Amino acid sequence: MKKDFSIVGKSVPRNDGKAKATGTATYTDDIKLPGMLHGKILRSPFPHARILNIDTSRAASLPGVKCVITGEDTPKIKYGNWRLFPDTQDEYPLAIDKVRFIGDEVAAVAAVDADTAEEALELIKVDYEELPGIFDIDSAIKEGAPVLHDYCPGNISVNRKIHYGDIEKAFAESDYVREDVFNVHAVSPAYLEPCAAVAQCDLDGRITLWTSTQVPYIVQCLLASTMGMRENDVRVIKPFVGGGFGGKMELRTWEFCAAFIAKKTGRPVKFTMTREEEFLAGRRRHAMKLYSKVGFKKDGTLTGKDLRIYLDGGGYNAMGPTATFLCGTFGAMLYRYPNYRFWGQHVYTNKPPASAMRGFGAPQSLFATESQMNIAAEELGIDPIELRIKNAQVTGDEIPDVATISSCGFIEALQKAAEMSGWKEKRYSPKPGQGIGIGCYSFISGGVFNWFNTQFPFSAAEVRVFDDGTAHLLTMAADIGQGCDTVLKQILAEELGLKMEDIRITSADTSTTPQADLGAWGSRLTMMNGNAVLDAAKKIKAQLFGAVSARQNLNVIHELGCKDGMVFPKSRPDRGIPFGEAVAMAQKANRGEPLVERGYYTPRDKGLVTPAFSFGAQISEVEVDKDTGVVRVKKFWTAHDCGTVINQMAVEGQLEGSIQMGLGYALSEQFVMEDGKTLNTNFLDYKMPNAMDVPPSEVAHIETYEPEGPMGAKEAGEGLAIPTAPAIADAVHHATGYRCKDLPITPEKILAGKKD
Amino acid sequence: MKKDFSIVGKSVPRNDGKAKATGTATYTDDIKLPGMLHGKILRSPFPHARILNIDTSRAASLPGVKCVITGEDTPKIKYGNWRLFPDTQDEYPLAIDKVRFIGDEVAAVAAVDADTAEEALELIKVDYEELPGIFDIDSAIKEGAPVLHDYCPGNISVNRKIHYGDIEKAFAESDYVREDVFNVHAVSPAYLEPCAAVAQCDLDGRITLWTSTQVPYIVQCLLASTMGMRENDVRVIKPFVGGGFGGKMELRTWEFCAAFIAKKTGRPVKFTMTREEEFLAGRRRHAMKLYSKVGFKKDGTLTGKDLRIYLDGGGYNAMGPTATFLCGTFGAMLYRYPNYRFWGQHVYTNKPPASAMRGFGAPQSLFATESQMNIAAEELGIDPIELRIKNAQVTGDEIPDVATISSCGFIEALQKAAEMSGWKEKRYSPKPGQGIGIGCYSFISGGVFNWFNTQFPFSAAEVRVFDDGTAHLLTMAADIGQGCDTVLKQILAEELGLKMEDIRITSADTSTTPQADLGAWGSRLTMMNGNAVLDAAKKIKAQLFGAVSARQNLNVIHELGCKDGMVFPKSRPDRGIPFGEAVAMAQKANRGEPLVERGYYTPRDKGLVTPAFSFGAQISEVEVDKDTGVVRVKKFWTAHDCGTVINQMAVEGQLEGSIQMGLGYALSEQFVMEDGKTLNTNFLDYKMPNAMDVPPSEVAHIETYEPEGPMGAKEAGEGLAIPTAPAIADAVHHATGYRCKDLPITPEKILAGKKD
Repeated sequence: MKKDFSIVGKSVPRNDGKAKATGTATYTDDIKLPGMLHGKILRSPFPHARILNIDTSRAASLPGVKCVITGEDTPKIKYGNWRLFPDTQDEYPLAIDKVRFIGDEVAAVAAVDADTAEEALELIKVDYEELPGIFDIDSAIKEGAPVLHDYCPGNISVNRKIHYGDIEKAFAESDYVREDVFNVHAVSPAYLEPCAAVAQCDLDGRITLWTSTQVPYIVQCLLASTMGMRENDVRVIKPFVGGGFGGKMELRTWEFCAAFIAKKTGRPVKFTMTREEEFLAGRRRHAMKLYSKVGFKKDGTLTGKDLRIYLDGGGYNAMGPTATFLCGTFGAMLYRYPNYRFWGQHVYTNKPPASAMRGFGAPQSLFATESQMNIAAEELGIDPIELRIKNAQVTGDEIPDVATISSCGFIEALQKAAEMSGWKEKRYSPKPGQGIGIGCYSFISGGVFNWFNTQFPFSAAEVRVFDDGTAHLLTMAADIGQGCDTVLKQILAEELGLKMEDIRITSADTSTTPQADLGAWGSRLTMMNGNAVLDAAKKIKAQLFGAVSARQNLNVIHELGCKDGMVFPKSRPDRGIPFGEAVAMAQKANRGEPLVERGYYTPRDKGLVTPAFSFGAQISEVEVDKDTGVVRVKKFWTAHDCGTVINQMAVEGQLEGSIQMGLGYALSEQFVMEDGKTLNTNFLDYKMPNAMDVPPSEVAHIETYEPEGPMGAKEAGEGLAIPTAPAIADAVHHATGYRCKDLPITPEKILAGKKD
Repeated sequence: MKKDFSIVGKSVPRNDGKAKATGTATYTDDIKLPGMLHGKILRSPFPHARILNIDTSRAASLPGVKCVITGEDTPKIKYGNWRLFPDTQDEYPLAIDKVRFIGDEVAAVAAVDADTAEEALELIKVDYEELPGIFDIDSAIKEGAPVLHDYCPGNISVNRKIHYGDIEKAFAESDYVREDVFNVHAVSPAYLEPCAAVAQCDLDGRITLWTSTQVPYIVQCLLASTMGMRENDVRVIKPFVGGGFGGKMELRTWEFCAAFIAKKTGRPVKFTMTREEEFLAGRRRHAMKLYSKVGFKKDGTLTGKDLRIYLDGGGYNAMGPTATFLCGTFGAMLYRYPNYRFWGQHVYTNKPPASAMRGFGAPQSLFATESQMNIAAEELGIDPIELRIKNAQVTGDEIPDVATISSCGFIEALQKAAEMSGWKEKRYSPKPGQGIGIGCYSFISGGVFNWFNTQFPFSAAEVRVFDDGTAHLLTMAADIGQGCDTVLKQILAEELGLKMEDIRITSADTSTTPQADLGAWGSRLTMMNGNAVLDAAKKIKAQLFGAVSARQNLNVIHELGCKDGMVFPKSRPDRGIPFGEAVAMAQKANRGEPLVERGYYTPRDKGLVTPAFSFGAQISEVEVDKDTGVVRVKKFWTAHDCGTVINQMAVEGQLEGSIQMGLGYALSEQFVMEDGKTLNTNFLDYKMPNAMDVPPSEVAHIETYEPEGPMGAKEAGEGLAIPTAPAIADAVHHATGYRCKDLPITPEKILAGKKD
């Protein structure tokens, strides 16, 4: 299945590398337009309150202020990404009647400069009636708890159930049943570029929005609907984006406010969030409470799993429905559970809304799975890697209601990780204060379930080829730093036999690139857009092959190929002609019409979750200071299966970033909150690991060939962020005897829990 | 043939009207990029000289100067629009070895600001060896004249001959043969926006050029070739353009210099011409010397014409080959010449190059035709309108080697102009000092002869339609103020049954709009691009009709239509469904694929000149002060046939502009030159008529239906600029007895030539 690739699989430098390295990359905040206004947002100081009155008159009369708006000025149209189920759309661009968390958006000001706008915020007088707030899951679901949204009396906004097999019977027939409660905390995506948006309204009333987003198409659609406009009277352009990690995949208040005020004033408007706003009120990964019960035969064979998860959603749904949906799916992954029951509930609390964040429900769900697997291995007296291999999913496995696993290198990954790390020796002959632990993952390569209810294919690509031997790739896919522009160019270059420098790419502009792309989330772009690019490239090749066959008078049985800038009959490579000349011929054959093709991809007949799953195993080695409880991770070994590696350097970059993120999730990052107020709103107080904190790492690519993926590829962007926390927790347990079920793993917890 | 139109034919406001009226339109010079350099060009002070040495060292070391280049630094690749005949490409971006006119480009400087760049120009030391200059046609073609280009010893760079019938026999059999020599002068296109270009080189070495041009595609191709780059590594974007009139239809030095220096320095570079540079060295309409001999039977029937034209080309060919080609074609137009001979010769002189200018050879050629017709009418004793009607071309006429005239309202135009103006009475009972005169025209609707040797169709359009009832039109066609964006939107709106505000247009960006469009010249856009838009729209309709037929279960014999936002069976308009819903259905039928179609047009089987000819007649009434010789035009009456009028206001705007231009050509505009130096280089000294000088005007649209044109339309942009000068000349003769054969018609000439 694997082909002899020219460009795919190589460590090709990134498309955006030079611009970023030289500082010439233009991010949204770098955009300056003539007459541009600067916007600021007034936020609620209360976690839960009724808005009695807003007086904007003093702010509006401050010199330099050009516009002040509150929810009352807007069309009052709710939005939310789950368009398929409008009931889940629970957010207004600016609060109407109520605020539901500290930082909730109440009003917006646009002025000639940011300082004036900031000053004006202080002149807006809001009369609030404070309401009791709820700040944790248990309080929220208690009988008689304060209600955040009138439509949702019990504060549970989403229910998701999965059930196959007979779970009660499974437990009854098990030799060993283990039940645990895990708590995982909220963390920040902490992208380096705070959110920003610039809107311009043209004289025909059409909006152009430049915004730091993962989802240009979704922002286009939702901005139009909240503005009461037609979708195609809104154009969204994604400039360079400094990371998203799930935190930039919805329409956001400032995007609406920029557009709304631009339309009202006729002047361009820019909003740029501060780091403090990002930490105070930004999207975050869901804190969850997980009740997991799992049964085994005494030989280690899994009999079933019963998983109950509450998600702490904060004040609004945001991407919570997807997280609720997916954490149940991930609960059934990695191992063969003949019987499985899941019930997930998304709970409103008076905190900043949680949403998507790298892993999308999996880091939480699999922290429980993997921790419990390690506990069970210990109690069953089976090596945790052996136990995993015994139950591991393999190619061809079916997960009811989910998918058939069409490629799976999980067992090989487990074996390879064990081998690389010297698992046996380190696990069974540990040095004092040191430990080694394991965590595994599986992740989706994009989603199948169409919650956004798009009417378009999931991805699209247009390829134009020219007689000068170049190609132009147009796609709405959003490169947010993950490198999809590079990967898509590689796929196209490989398929057409061109070099990277032969390809120009235009991406993520809803008006000039082909409709549509659902965005950069769920590790979908390589799979989805890669397939669209291939589809277009194959159509191009069909035309080139036809023209060359006619010109060279080839027997119809000849197959042709594209490689090294040539188009040639495979059996007679000497009779090839240069790519550009082949294009010229095809163009002549079409009486001059340029050679342009569009490709599309929509996963069909692939279940409701994803077309393909990645797999992997990670082993970490730690050293724990017995006096301070401080954990130092010494090294990571990761063996992962992302199908064909399209760009080795890019995959390794994803791994490095994932380890940094997983490290923070496991050990140091957390929101310090008091009655709904986030206290650590900067990078000094929010402890993200920096480059010096990241230990060395070894990686093995277990290459499988994913039949649904472009050139056999599947995801490599998010799954890798999952195993680090459980692997560290397991290593800490190995070193200290303390088993963490309540992230993060702090020195205090270790000191309190360790067994000497 | 004529349809019941909803939007076509109406006076629809211009697409760019609001932006221009509010001052928000962004022209090239309005573009500011971070780190942008400002460029200036060093020009030759001599009309003809050899460059012995250029010392740029002092300029280069001036603080703030970032780059100085001369021809020696460049790849030394010649360019020119006539790519089909590379011999005609005679110009380098910067002079190599020789300069050929005062203002010829010798070096370029880019500095941190324009003042510094200007200062640096003075520090460049050029050693010239002066050569004898030639400044008129007769001197240039004389035996032993100085030679401008080594490859062209006789200074005649282009020869064009046409001959059909037997012209000598025709004259021998004529009752009356008239022979005249006419001289027409050079005038400036005098667009309000001087030329400007901004170039940026990205980190992969690709160039983006924003430029005030009529021909983005031509600039893309020629810039790439002169830079030694691939065509598609160059992107050309046309911002708002403040007029072109033919003067912006070539690659120009500053475009090359901006790109070349941007690539060299890595910084964006802007060049903006001054008005003085435009007048000193800018492109202009060809001065010509025309020998015309025409024969008649005594009843006025034309027997033949022998036309010899010398074009004063200036130092380089520029668009001279086309003018040479076309002035011969136009010499055979308007009337039925059974025998015709033409010989045109393009002559080099040491003056700024002449090139295209509104009318493209026709104002000169038809000034001779029309003046001679009026002379002949007088001498034959036939009313000039009667004489014209007797010989007028009609629908179905064939012009050998040119085309079949597929629509012609010339006779109706003559009759209508006579009627509107009260011709009979004013011509035959004139008031003292007053006169009435006539001039007629025919013009092309775009060119067929592919001198640029494009490999693409002549025009292209992409149409995307959406389920919100909107459409997006993408085209490379260049709106330079003539209004083609508006006209193309009208054609699309009409065909799809939409409103103007339903259509977004993206135009004139060689990277995002479909390949290709040959540009805005030869009055080609309504015809060429209008047909491409229709082609795309018809393909869209086919899909909509299919989807609606399936959904409504229509009998296959039903025809469907689009109107008022509905798609409906024509026989059952009540069963229509909204356009957006029809799009949604078609999209569903294509499993979500967006509904996008491309349309193209290339004139085929339409001869070598044009797919369709416009026709018209103009009558002017003048009053001549007998003491001063000053001419005041009292009124114009114009009856013209442009096929279907797409936008009445736009056509009338073209007429107003044409009259203003024709008035200047006839009476006031001229370059005052001394030994190759232009002395009047500003609007004070170059006497262009202003709004107050333009007399009232009446217009009648003689609507024909041009079968080759989109919805029956043909050109309306240039032909109207032709008849004004001969009509005024005839009226002046009628008023004073002075017959001008030597434009412009100055008071001095009138006073010297009048018959009291």
